[in-house]
Formats: sequence, C-alpha cells, structure tokens
Amino acid sequence: MIIALDAMGGDFAPSSTVEGAVLVSKSSKHKILLVGQEKILYKELSKYDLSDLNIDIINANEVITMGEHPAQAVRKKTDSSLAVCAKLVRDGKANAFVSMGNSGAIMAVAIFYLKRIPGILRPSISTIFPTVNGNCVMADIGANVDCKPEYLFQFAIMSNVFCKKVMKIKYPKIALISIGEEPTKGNNLSIKAFKLLNKSGINFIGNIEGKDVINGKADVVICDGFVGNVLLKFSEGIAETFIKLIKEKIIKQPLFWLAIPFLWFAIRTIKKKIDYSEFGGAPLLGVNEVCIIGHGRSNGKAIKNAIFTGINMVQQNMIIDIKKAIDKYKI
Amino acid sequence: MIIALDAMGGDFAPSSTVEGAVLVSKSSKHKILLVGQEKILYKELSKYDLSDLNIDIINANEVITMGEHPAQAVRKKTDSSLAVCAKLVRDGKANAFVSMGNSGAIMAVAIFYLKRIPGILRPSISTIFPTVNGNCVMADIGANVDCKPEYLFQFAIMSNVFCKKVMKIKYPKIALISIGEEPTKGNNLSIKAFKLLNKSGINFIGNIEGKDVINGKADVVICDGFVGNVLLKFSEGIAETFIKLIKEKIIKQPLFWLAIPFLWFAIRTIKKKIDYSEFGGAPLLGVNEVCIIGHGRSNGKAIKNAIFTGINMVQQNMIIDIKKAIDKYKI
Repeated sequence: MIIALDAMGGDFAPSSTVEGAVLVSKSSKHKILLVGQEKILYKELSKYDLSDLNIDIINANEVITMGEHPAQAVRKKTDSSLAVCAKLVRDGKANAFVSMGNSGAIMAVAIFYLKRIPGILRPSISTIFPTVNGNCVMADIGANVDCKPEYLFQFAIMSNVFCKKVMKIKYPKIALISIGEEPTKGNNLSIKAFKLLNKSGINFIGNIEGKDVINGKADVVICDGFVGNVLLKFSEGIAETFIKLIKEKIIKQPLFWLAIPFLWFAIRTIKKKIDYSEFGGAPLLGVNEVCIIGHGRSNGKAIKNAIFTGINMVQQNMIIDIKKAIDKYKI
Repeated sequence: MIIALDAMGGDFAPSSTVEGAVLVSKSSKHKILLVGQEKILYKELSKYDLSDLNIDIINANEVITMGEHPAQAVRKKTDSSLAVCAKLVRDGKANAFVSMGNSGAIMAVAIFYLKRIPGILRPSISTIFPTVNGNCVMADIGANVDCKPEYLFQFAIMSNVFCKKVMKIKYPKIALISIGEEPTKGNNLSIKAFKLLNKSGINFIGNIEGKDVINGKADVVICDGFVGNVLLKFSEGIAETFIKLIKEKIIKQPLFWLAIPFLWFAIRTIKKKIDYSEFGGAPLLGVNEVCIIGHGRSNGKAIKNAIFTGINMVQQNMIIDIKKAIDKYKI
C-alpha cells in the first residue's frame, strides 16, 4: 500500500513526520510518499539509515500554516504539501493521505480534490476517545461547528461504520450528547437530531450526559463539532492536570516520596490510556478516499500510528461500507 | 438573616435538606425556613436535638419533581415547596432561597415570582469550577441551552460580579470558550459574542480552548448552557473515572497495596478539590433576589455550603452590584 504523508504539517514537522515515515517503513512493507519541500526533507531523511526504507520524497513548494484560512489556502496554494497529497490520492498514486496540519484546511483540501461521497451533507472527523472500560468513537470533533440535525444524523451513520471497523463491535451503541436523558432535554439541534436518530433504524440508545461519555455507556458518541472539540481538548487538559496535581502532592509531602515508584506506575498507566499518540489520527469521514487527520502535537510514534490507522481503513474498505450505509439509512 | 430552603428538592430530600438546615443552624445564628410538606418535615426534624436550633417549618402541599416541565410546573403547582420559597423571598419574609430540585423549574419559578433585573435578557447559572491553581467561575451551566450573543455578553457581566465577590479578584480575567484562540475561530454564536465582549470595556482576555479551562487561564469562563452543562457533567465523570482507574490498578497489583496509604491521601485531596459539596450551590444570576441552585445529589454538608453561599451573596449586596454592572456595560 502507498500512503501520502503531508511532511510539512504539525507542530514538530518535518522532523516528526520524517520519523513517523521511517518508523512505518521499518516495521512494514508499505510505501510512504513524503510530500513537502524536497530540500528540507532530503536533509531530514539523511539523518536515518536509508537501507531497506521504502520512502519516496515528492516535492511540493508551498506550505499551509496553522492560522491560514482553509478556503483561501485551498484556492491559492495549489502546490501545498497538503494539496499534493490529496492529488496523489485522487490520481491513484496513493491509497490514502495523512496530515497533522491545519484541520480546517485538510478538510477543505479533501473536499475540493476528493469530493464528498454522494448524499453526504458534511464530512466529519471521528476520533477514538478513552472511556473507563475501553474506548468509544466521538464525532464530530471540530470539522463542523454549526450543524443541522441532518449532519448529526449522518455523523452517526458514518461513525457507526468506523466503530465497527476499529472496535470490532457488531452493533455499536450510538448515543447523542445532551444535558439530560429525556428526548425533550437538549438544545434545538440535539432535540431535532434525537428525533431523526430515533426513527432511523440504527442502534440508537438515546441521549447521554457528559459524565456518561467517559463511563463508557455508548460506543459511538455524537455531537456538533464545537461541543466535540471543546470536550476533546478539555479532556486533554483535565488529564494533564490530574497528573500534575498528584505529582505536586508528592513533592510537598516528603512521606509521599516512598510511594513514588507506585504512583509512577499508576500515572504511566493513566497517561497511556489518555495519550493521543496511542490512538494515531482521526479519519475525515464522508469524502471519497481515506484521509487521516492527526493531532498537531504528534510525535513520530503518533504519526506512525496515524499512518497505520489509514492503512487499516483502506484494507477494510471503509469508504465502500460508508457508501452502503448512507444508501441504507436515508433521512 | 432568614433563608428559605426548598426541603423537598434533591435526590436525598428531605433527609439531606433537613440535615443541611440543622448544620447551618448549629454553626450560625441565621434562621432557616424549611419549606415543604409539614408532616414529613416534622418527622424528619424530630430526629435531631432541636434545642437552640433556629428552624421553622413552612407548609407547602405540592412538590415539583425532577422530570416535570418547568413552565407547566410553575403554572399548575402554585403551592409547591419551590413556589412557596420564592414567594417568601418576594414578600420580604426571607432574604434568599435555596433549592436542590429541578433546575429548569427553579429558574422558571424565580423568574415568575421574583422577576428579571431590568435589562437582563436571560438569567444564567454561574458555578465555581476547579482549576489547577484554584477555581474559576463558569457560566452558563444549563439555564439557557440556545443562546444569542447578547445573552453570553450578559452572562459575562454578571459572572464578573460574582467572581469579584466570591474569589475576591479585583479584575477577573474573562474568557470565552471556543475551539481556537483567534477571534475568527468558533461557531456563529461564539464569534459574535467575541465581538461584543471585545468592545465592551470589561477585562476580556479572548477565546480559550477546553484545555485552558482547567489550566486556570481565566477567572471567568463563558459559554452557552448546553456546552457548560456538558462540560460540567463530563468533568464530574472524568474525575470519578480517574479515581476508579487508580483504585483498580491497586487491586490488580499486590505490590501496590503498600502504596495504599499514600494513594488514599492523594485521592482524598483530589476528591476534595473536585467535590461539588465543597463549593455549595450555584447562584441563578439575573433575578431580583438571591437564589441558589444546588446539585441534585447534594448531601447535608453540600446543602449547608449552598445555604452559606446564599447568605454570603446577600451580605455582599450582589444584586445591587449586578444592577450597577448591567447599567454600566450596555450592549
């Protein structure tokens, strides 16, 4: 399989992206196309032992930055690393593309070059989210901040397919985030989305509150991209804060020093559970090809995992299954 | 001071409410009016040593349940414990009222009997929320699930006053929850609210992301009631989950048993930090009198703290200060 990697996207690119590509190439037979400014990439890649590595560099002169306006970036920077990645997939020269860059721009580029799956109103970003008894799939986590009920309905249909593929659950339990379990509780958007989901024939278990996300009540958790993004970032913050609080307590109490080995193990376990680098990237669902969006702060290991998420999605024919699901569950 | 307590509201009422009233009465000279079905309340109160307790029972025949529709409950149940509490305050027989009941109904009752402060579009519920370096004030946490930018602007003005009063910060840093720091990042609501806040003359520090809420970047954090409620409940869930995860680790690893005393102290410290019973209730800001809404799961201690929050707000003339602030910061 051939994966195009936006080598210029992410807070630590290109060193992180090149490292990610090398890690994938060392541990599999898949080919990585490192897309970006070739001089910089050659220099970065030369730090590694290149024997047996299945990596090509594809030049792209422009870079889309994090603050750039997505629609403008797509129009103006047709030779950006991101645009070249999407064109490689469109032209059949790569099976999927992966980027840790500006997520708004990734979506805009993907829609522009790869087009939406027929019938899809808005693509969404679905991520794997840790719960007390495993994981759930959460969508949307930022692609669509102002949603209509029909968007949320389609996020559920697409995320259901993703959940089946990655979590191997035959009938995922799908829930809608709201402020109470009753169908009448929520805002205008969630109350209308509830009605659509409830009559759709999918395995919809109803509304869940914030606390039930982490309690693992549902396998698929649906919300608009504003709520999802705030929740996702909040959970990152709260997890880091807990670890910091525990550590601070230890420093202040000399008696606690005896417990350091035990606490260290506990903290490492929690960190592993909440560490985004363990999950790799999140797929942009609803375009005609596989596109994986990684966390901007991704290190080499996280990028490796994001690439394998992409490979996994292609191998499992996720796009075909999403097309079937969208045809099956009409609004 | 005289506080009316809705003795029938809350998951553990009336035993929790009566206990809360007794705790306040034992530790202060304030008078508590226990409002509810008098037979039940007399029975509950008879479990305590009543000497020196400054508690009166005021009969109210009806009870508004948790699932009841707020507007209907207000119209139909004019002799509910909640309605009687509000009437006692309206008629000058109590200085404030406190309830752990149906928060939608509390707001509806408060608006109906006590009226909104002139100029206020929507009252909000502001709560104290733990951060890594102390606390912040968050609003709205559920009173208004579908908001206009002007509502968010007023939540900021009112929460600013509350923050000054409770956290004793002279110039609280006010921030808006969004999905990026740039003024252009967010949904339609937050982008418009940003503009209003930015030109208002208050100490607005801009957008903050989910992770910055817990990092303590702001003293006042503003969002719509849907986002606030989801976040608040999510944080309760995630905190409980962390504690559960740590405990599970200990059970599975016999070596960890040695660390139990240390971990127990660490967990207790964290629990204390995130325990809603430590903060007492959250004020409903924007009505003409002091009204405190407590957590449905409140125990006696939490109810005691909620009552003292109400007393504190009355003593500090919070309503007068909110009126002044609303006059000062026009939209």
